[in-house]
Amino acid sequence: MDRRSSIAAIVRAVLAAGPLRRADLEARTGLSQPTIAKLTRALIDSGYLTETTAGGAPGHIGRPAAALDVRAHRAFFAGVKVTPDELIGVVTDLRAVVHGTAHVPLGDARTPPDVVAAIARLTAQLRREHPVGALGVSVAGDVDRDTGVARYEPFLGWHDVALAELCAEATGLRTVADNDIRALTEAENWFGAGADARSFLLVAVGSGVTSGLVVDGRVLTGAHGVAGELGHVPIDRRGPKCYCGARGCLEAVASEPALLRRVADATGAPGVTLDRAIRLARLGDPRVGEVFAEAGRAIGQAVGGVINLIGPELVVFSADHLDGFALLEPHVRAAVAEHAFGAAARAEIAVRPLPFEQWARGAAVVAIASYVASVQV
Amino acid sequence: MDRRSSIAAIVRAVLAAGPLRRADLEARTGLSQPTIAKLTRALIDSGYLTETTAGGAPGHIGRPAAALDVRAHRAFFAGVKVTPDELIGVVTDLRAVVHGTAHVPLGDARTPPDVVAAIARLTAQLRREHPVGALGVSVAGDVDRDTGVARYEPFLGWHDVALAELCAEATGLRTVADNDIRALTEAENWFGAGADARSFLLVAVGSGVTSGLVVDGRVLTGAHGVAGELGHVPIDRRGPKCYCGARGCLEAVASEPALLRRVADATGAPGVTLDRAIRLARLGDPRVGEVFAEAGRAIGQAVGGVINLIGPELVVFSADHLDGFALLEPHVRAAVAEHAFGAAARAEIAVRPLPFEQWARGAAVVAIASYVASVQV
Repeated sequence: MDRRSSIAAIVRAVLAAGPLRRADLEARTGLSQPTIAKLTRALIDSGYLTETTAGGAPGHIGRPAAALDVRAHRAFFAGVKVTPDELIGVVTDLRAVVHGTAHVPLGDARTPPDVVAAIARLTAQLRREHPVGALGVSVAGDVDRDTGVARYEPFLGWHDVALAELCAEATGLRTVADNDIRALTEAENWFGAGADARSFLLVAVGSGVTSGLVVDGRVLTGAHGVAGELGHVPIDRRGPKCYCGARGCLEAVASEPALLRRVADATGAPGVTLDRAIRLARLGDPRVGEVFAEAGRAIGQAVGGVINLIGPELVVFSADHLDGFALLEPHVRAAVAEHAFGAAARAEIAVRPLPFEQWARGAAVVAIASYVASVQV
Repeated sequence: MDRRSSIAAIVRAVLAAGPLRRADLEARTGLSQPTIAKLTRALIDSGYLTETTAGGAPGHIGRPAAALDVRAHRAFFAGVKVTPDELIGVVTDLRAVVHGTAHVPLGDARTPPDVVAAIARLTAQLRREHPVGALGVSVAGDVDRDTGVARYEPFLGWHDVALAELCAEATGLRTVADNDIRALTEAENWFGAGADARSFLLVAVGSGVTSGLVVDGRVLTGAHGVAGELGHVPIDRRGPKCYCGARGCLEAVASEPALLRRVADATGAPGVTLDRAIRLARLGDPRVGEVFAEAGRAIGQAVGGVINLIGPELVVFSADHLDGFALLEPHVRAAVAEHAFGAAARAEIAVRPLPFEQWARGAAVVAIASYVASVQV
């Protein structure tokens, strides 16, 4: 490993599991003891790390070993999640703890220049209280993280927008851009589920159904920039056509618009809202209950397939509306249990609320990751 | 990296891409120049590597740089693939070049002691001509490579058989055991598709439909030992029940027995063979043609889902019967094209004959990988 990668590995290990003793750091990074001694010294001198006194292990005799922790306020980061209706922004420290939140409605101003100008206004708000050093922006669709280009954003109708570059010009901040679910998965990987699991699947159920996959500790990005498209896993050869052109995609059955369409068909009440659909299901309307059950089974079936292919340690479900997900959950779990093959069924299942602020935090984590990769001491 | 991992990284890089100059080795392994100089010296002295004179790059002026290559005959390996009917064995050198082949029919002798005795006989045959140093055995089902235990082999009805240990006792050879498609995928990863692609999907179509997945240069094994179970990806919610208990698995539609059952139903001719079914389809029987088309679409649909989840560079299809696969192929390709989402559709598709000797070679490659990981100089 070169010096910069070694530094990044040390900072990341301490971020994920600090405070850490140098000996633990050796085990976690695979770096030699002299390298760790030298680089941690430099990181302390430059204010990235700080030395604390950790308690010894149970039964430990003698002086407690010195442990290293990250100086969380060494740098602050802005994260912005772009939705078709509004921008959600957060400011975080180096440990991805959120220190402030702001929202900016987009109205009809959804062209790339409009949105970039709104991101600049939002970022200015976030910078008032904290010395933000870098910006992460996340949007749906096909985003090339390396170049920061949003190649295709389906909800805004964008094609090949140099999002990172435009935001960097508008804000003066070093900017990275990424796909939104991938950014959320990166946040889970650095600071959430990934702290305990080397492989996991994060499923987000909302206006779409999408996912992020972590294998061997790394978020899959796909050889061509596309991965984790759970919504376009075909689950029903005779199912409805999806907007992507294929038949039987999971999203064509289980996304929020698809679900509402089916509730409208089942009840003969067009224009039904999600809140209303949830209420009807809770009141015991069997037609609406069956629509939720069907969507839950479809999600569980697709996830069962992923489990058989990847064999993750853990599956985390998140939803915009936890009330809605509660109606899906038993059917999701039953279908996962039906389809998971052999020992793959041992994958743990967790449900977690991940509102849009968490997605914005994900964008900040992508900025943190990029920052950590370039620390020089 | 510790010394042993560094040695293994060097040997593997030279195996995959040799002859290699030391400078290329630096780029491929990430090891420092002094480390490479020291370890390659030791590997040459111990007979693992040899120094050759590689031609300079085009336009190169001056002395050609010395290049390193593996001494392929430094060690020989036996690989055995266990099928319900027979054992297929090969003997290979360190570069996985096959030097000999042998078959042993199993008849009704399928208990673990029977099969282990047959493996010992087969290995004895293979050792007559070559000084075999290690043995790899592959079987279908759930195999724990680390312990060498076949936890479940569905075709032989085995549960928790300490296969590697029993074979080591019976042959006196250091033995590793692995799942058969994973072993085949490892062979592709070390010596085939993996030489050019960091991520690929290998699909094997035959009595079952299964797959191996390589991500970031590593074969996925799953957190609980199960991964790549393409045959149990659910593709049709209203499809037939699979032997695994779930509904609509790919194998329930596209495996050879499922296909023959459907041909029998369609033609009213029970007990039809694969050769006969292929002949009927070739003669233009539309009912049989539609069964092949349906199976091909189902495979393509499942593979399209994998492409959307993983975004591999390459998909390699292999089949026991290439004639049969030729009937499936256009439908597989059309369905992949329908379901692949956005840029994921750029995954290259290749078809390759991989007869059982290649599966046996895969078992030998697992033994080679284990051997390389433990080289000491």
